[in-house]
Amino acid sequence: MDNEQLNHLPISGVRLGVAAAGIKYADRNDLVIIEMFPGSTCAAVFTRNAFCAAPVQVAKQHLASSSPRYLLINSGNANAGTGSEGLAVCNESCEALAEVADCSPDQVLPFSTGVIGEPLPLTKIKAALPQALANLDESGWPTAARAIMTTDTVPKLVSRSFQSGGKTLTVTGMAKGSGMIRPDMATMLAYVATDANVDAGLLQECLRQAVEPSFNSITVDGDTSTNDACVLMASGASEHPVISHTDSDAFMALCDAVKEVCMELARAIVKDGEGATKLVEVLVEGAVDAAEARQVAYTIAHSPLVKTALFASDPNWGRILAAVGRAGLADLDIDAIRIWLGDASIVKDGGRDPEYTEEAGQVVMDQDEIVIRVALGRGGAEARILTCDLSYDYVKINAEYRT
Amino acid sequence: MDNEQLNHLPISGVRLGVAAAGIKYADRNDLVIIEMFPGSTCAAVFTRNAFCAAPVQVAKQHLASSSPRYLLINSGNANAGTGSEGLAVCNESCEALAEVADCSPDQVLPFSTGVIGEPLPLTKIKAALPQALANLDESGWPTAARAIMTTDTVPKLVSRSFQSGGKTLTVTGMAKGSGMIRPDMATMLAYVATDANVDAGLLQECLRQAVEPSFNSITVDGDTSTNDACVLMASGASEHPVISHTDSDAFMALCDAVKEVCMELARAIVKDGEGATKLVEVLVEGAVDAAEARQVAYTIAHSPLVKTALFASDPNWGRILAAVGRAGLADLDIDAIRIWLGDASIVKDGGRDPEYTEEAGQVVMDQDEIVIRVALGRGGAEARILTCDLSYDYVKINAEYRT
Repeated sequence: MDNEQLNHLPISGVRLGVAAAGIKYADRNDLVIIEMFPGSTCAAVFTRNAFCAAPVQVAKQHLASSSPRYLLINSGNANAGTGSEGLAVCNESCEALAEVADCSPDQVLPFSTGVIGEPLPLTKIKAALPQALANLDESGWPTAARAIMTTDTVPKLVSRSFQSGGKTLTVTGMAKGSGMIRPDMATMLAYVATDANVDAGLLQECLRQAVEPSFNSITVDGDTSTNDACVLMASGASEHPVISHTDSDAFMALCDAVKEVCMELARAIVKDGEGATKLVEVLVEGAVDAAEARQVAYTIAHSPLVKTALFASDPNWGRILAAVGRAGLADLDIDAIRIWLGDASIVKDGGRDPEYTEEAGQVVMDQDEIVIRVALGRGGAEARILTCDLSYDYVKINAEYRT
Repeated sequence: MDNEQLNHLPISGVRLGVAAAGIKYADRNDLVIIEMFPGSTCAAVFTRNAFCAAPVQVAKQHLASSSPRYLLINSGNANAGTGSEGLAVCNESCEALAEVADCSPDQVLPFSTGVIGEPLPLTKIKAALPQALANLDESGWPTAARAIMTTDTVPKLVSRSFQSGGKTLTVTGMAKGSGMIRPDMATMLAYVATDANVDAGLLQECLRQAVEPSFNSITVDGDTSTNDACVLMASGASEHPVISHTDSDAFMALCDAVKEVCMELARAIVKDGEGATKLVEVLVEGAVDAAEARQVAYTIAHSPLVKTALFASDPNWGRILAAVGRAGLADLDIDAIRIWLGDASIVKDGGRDPEYTEEAGQVVMDQDEIVIRVALGRGGAEARILTCDLSYDYVKINAEYRT
């Protein structure tokens, strides 16, 4: 996603401001404030990592007890693994913003991303709040999308608009994420907003539907973060009437648009996976149930041997077969399994498809986007996981992360 | 393990021969025959990968129907993912050896290691059999240990001897393995022999006990191979009386020696893990049961972020904490968890131990052998897993494997 693609549609009733607090990086924005109109509704999903970060714990509490007005986001420091002190600092940062923005502290949802285990520099954040508030603007999405980046190489920002009852509704979302990516019921940091007027309960349902095939179906390295969070905000600033029934056309159209935005952001995260040179879709079908299909898909997507073969553009399909075989499925009939690399059939009747040629495999492997398809032949369920390859640069980025 | 350490104790009644069949590599031995005295007993465990290779299927059948006299091992080609043709070729190779060695085909156990999915070159193997038979010798262990290597950088050969009832008994074993290492109820190729005279049932029990804490507790990349096999042979050529009771001192002494040999071979495999620069022991204690302890230990051992931090000698303990948090344990009380890097306490009360210093972590990380210890504080079970780091060379070796 290059700069040209940072065109986006602002969301009426949602303003974004940034500042350079100097948390980890010098001379770049690392603090974002998102302001929602009074009366906005807000839904969120969070990481299921047991060691969830202080901001995740605080954001959950605040979301349960109030109607949020502000999101306070920093990059460069995750405020995770910081114990009771981390919680105290996180609460203080919410109080500081509440004071200058004139709301109650529990109307602020905090989010952090960056290195784990370092104390969050509260003084620097406090000092930067006035600047971020001063530049709040509905057109602030591109600068905010850049400010939340850590090892990301490109900002991720997506918009959709659609018609409902003669009115135009808009959905815009941004996300950050590149490593420690295997979201579990949530994602890396992602913020999606709409100008629709939506009941809070419905908004949560809309988000739940959207994250499952998008952020919850990607993996870079299998490492679920301590800080994953995805927020969906509805400002209600459009002229469209309130959306309050799950069976309404407007709700379904909104769900489609939110899902599309999340799918495109999730895809952008994997494409920008640390050191990634290929985008790989792993499709597993013919499974007994979705859980089994996901189990096989993730086993392939996490295999270092499959990932390094993808990096090398080597159609070493034996490694895919070995991953399917070790995925832990009981009573697997290997003779019923089919495996395709792109449209080349590679495995059939328990071995290499006689029609398969190394050349056909090479043609697929030379592409930037690759589909691995496995048919288990034992049911009707399927799963689709997006992942990337494992390159020298993944090792370089993660070996040198703190230096 | 350098050449100097290739000192070993031959096993009376077990002879090894090698030949250069030219299967994949030129100008190196890649075929091994191990001959057992008539009357020897033999036990084996094999991979649980559903796509198990042709030789694994055939070896299991032969072991069930006869008393093996010969092991036929090749490197350079795994004969896995080769379907019914692979099975036919494997059976033909056993028949060919049986014919020249004058035994029945089911007295030959076949083993293959190398690239998956390529047809096994039967003609080359047949042509090399006479040479390998001609140099059968009790002192053949070091050349055999080298001939079974693929991406291994060092041969792995270990011996132990012990006294029982005034007689000396000996155990010698060799193994190969470097990548695609996360043995499941078996190992990469490992061959252990003793001159003890042991009932076949007891020998299997002895092997079962030995592989659990050794080959079944190591991982390089989490990729369980299609070809894992571990064989324990007992020639009975010693003067020690037959061992036929599990509660005898001799049986317990033999089990200890076999376990020691397996532990040392397993350790040598991880130390020679593809691209490995560090040997890492992950110790998880205070778990409700062993399965839970292993789950946490493997989550840490497989985390690409933990492994790259180890490669960089970076005490980035937040990644260890994040791995524990995502290991999938229900109702994990993070405040009860302790984590140590070597003897430095890093996590306590849900966050960084106040006593921890980056310098203390750095001292541990700068060593070649590192212990990560996690206390879950919820039970009495523990697990110990050996693994290695993830380096540029792992990517290089696996990206260039077939070129």
